[in-house]
Amino acid sequence: MHVSFEVAQEIIEKAVEKSKEIGVKMCIAVLDSGGNLKSFTRMDDAWVGSIDIAIKKAKTACYFAMPSGEIGKLSVPGSPLYGIEHSNDGLITFPGGLPIVDEEGMLIGAIGVSGDTVENDHLVAQAGVNVAGVCDIPKHPWRT
Amino acid sequence: MHVSFEVAQEIIEKAVEKSKEIGVKMCIAVLDSGGNLKSFTRMDDAWVGSIDIAIKKAKTACYFAMPSGEIGKLSVPGSPLYGIEHSNDGLITFPGGLPIVDEEGMLIGAIGVSGDTVENDHLVAQAGVNVAGVCDIPKHPWRT
Amino acid sequence: MHVSFEVAQEIIEKAVEKSKEIGVKMCIAVLDSGGNLKSFTRMDDAWVGSIDIAIKKAKTACYFAMPSGEIGKLSVPGSPLYGIEHSNDGLITFPGGLPIVDEEGMLIGAIGVSGDTVENDHLVAQAGVNVAGVCDIPKHPWRT
Amino acid sequence: MHVSFEVAQEIIEKAVEKSKEIGVKMCIAVLDSGGNLKSFTRMDDAWVGSIDIAIKKAKTACYFAMPSGEIGKLSVPGSPLYGIEHSNDGLITFPGGLPIVDEEGMLIGAIGVSGDTVENDHLVAQAGVNVAGVCDIPKHPWRT
Repeated sequence: MHVSFEVAQEIIEKAVEKSKEIGVKMCIAVLDSGGNLKSFTRMDDAWVGSIDIAIKKAKTACYFAMPSGEIGKLSVPGSPLYGIEHSNDGLITFPGGLPIVDEEGMLIGAIGVSGDTVENDHLVAQAGVNVAGVCDIPKHPWRT
Repeated sequence: MHVSFEVAQEIIEKAVEKSKEIGVKMCIAVLDSGGNLKSFTRMDDAWVGSIDIAIKKAKTACYFAMPSGEIGKLSVPGSPLYGIEHSNDGLITFPGGLPIVDEEGMLIGAIGVSGDTVENDHLVAQAGVNVAGVCDIPKHPWRT
Repeated sequence: MHVSFEVAQEIIEKAVEKSKEIGVKMCIAVLDSGGNLKSFTRMDDAWVGSIDIAIKKAKTACYFAMPSGEIGKLSVPGSPLYGIEHSNDGLITFPGGLPIVDEEGMLIGAIGVSGDTVENDHLVAQAGVNVAGVCDIPKHPWRT
Repeated sequence: MHVSFEVAQEIIEKAVEKSKEIGVKMCIAVLDSGGNLKSFTRMDDAWVGSIDIAIKKAKTACYFAMPSGEIGKLSVPGSPLYGIEHSNDGLITFPGGLPIVDEEGMLIGAIGVSGDTVENDHLVAQAGVNVAGVCDIPKHPWRT
């Protein structure tokens, strides 16, 4: 489970702050380490279609403990994971989903952001992650 | 669409406050008037199974602009709406979902709460509604 | 996450042992505390239809941290949770699903058993739970 | 149906043994010849997202009686089976799923493995298959 109510709220807050700073309208989802929704917000005028994408990006990052965009690199035609998005009731494999890993190398949850370019989605997700941990899997074995 | 980001956040805040006051752990969902997720939070130790129930209660209240429990009274065996929960990818027809209607009689969204008895779920939902409007449909025609 | 590979295997083993002792053919599922599948087995000649029921019973017990049959008592027509099985992509609310709670009051997973009478399903589930904890929520607050 | 409880357990055991030998964390699923789940295990720290992928790889291998990766070669853009993964509630068409065929040329089940590179997934699946049969369809007609 790991990510707490307070931390999830703070992650959302920082992500919204970052979104305002760069002038974008985002959907932001935070999941616990089991992939279950912990906190969500949709900023005014964010696309309705981004609700599901934000949640699925976070799920993708959580389920494989890596940035959603990394899965995307491995799943284009001709790559080893081509078609992986057909699993788990749908994955989203472009950037904007990041795992949240604590200093001990423990996966504690994930964030997913959708609403603008994938670069901006990623930027906002990173701002959220910074509150609670890192999104790069540490060198030593990570755990769930 | 109607319910704004700020109002949705405030609704969640008041609902969490009420939950703490009565000592319960809740999942709380706020939808806009189109039935699309606006804001969500899961308090620590709230049941994972309540995530979907909170969202579905809010959806039920929003889709029919009436308390989820009112739909429930009409959908028990022998009643006119028996089986309605099979529509709309699943409804939840017991208390805890409330529409949010403004003073002009306009539906502006809905709240759904799950995590304790249906009485407490309703109480917390009502605390959320109070922030932004009423949950009884006014006498004059309501609109979406 | 909580329930470990070794413990999950041992739970399955004891549940199979109990099934053989009372002469029944079971499907047995063990989930972690996030509701994700950890271990599963289907004994020879167990009903194919019991695969999904065993998993859904475990999910039901995990998602609400109580025996699936307790949810069932609250969800018959006229009871407060009537229709709850329409949530969470389907719940199974008759006996055979049990949460697994450790001595500290922490939910660590759940077991679901299907294949015979609900009494026998429950008996086998209980044998599995005994390996790793209790299934009654302790008096002091439980946590996830 | 064919693959027995004992054999399924032994397949899982050997696959786990192989996983430990090469230092990977896997989800391993064994299906009977009807495509129905027989046995499943998730090793500690294996990705949660691999649960569904392991099962879908096994399903893919079972439904078409050939390695999941072989289907993948036929389903890339421009190939005759392009888009086949949209059938059967989702297929996974990269390596890690293998049919299990006995010496008589009879399909008796399938194994699916997910958790590492597709090469390692395949290696572990092969270790499982070796317990009970072969995964190459024999020259003479195979049967289900």
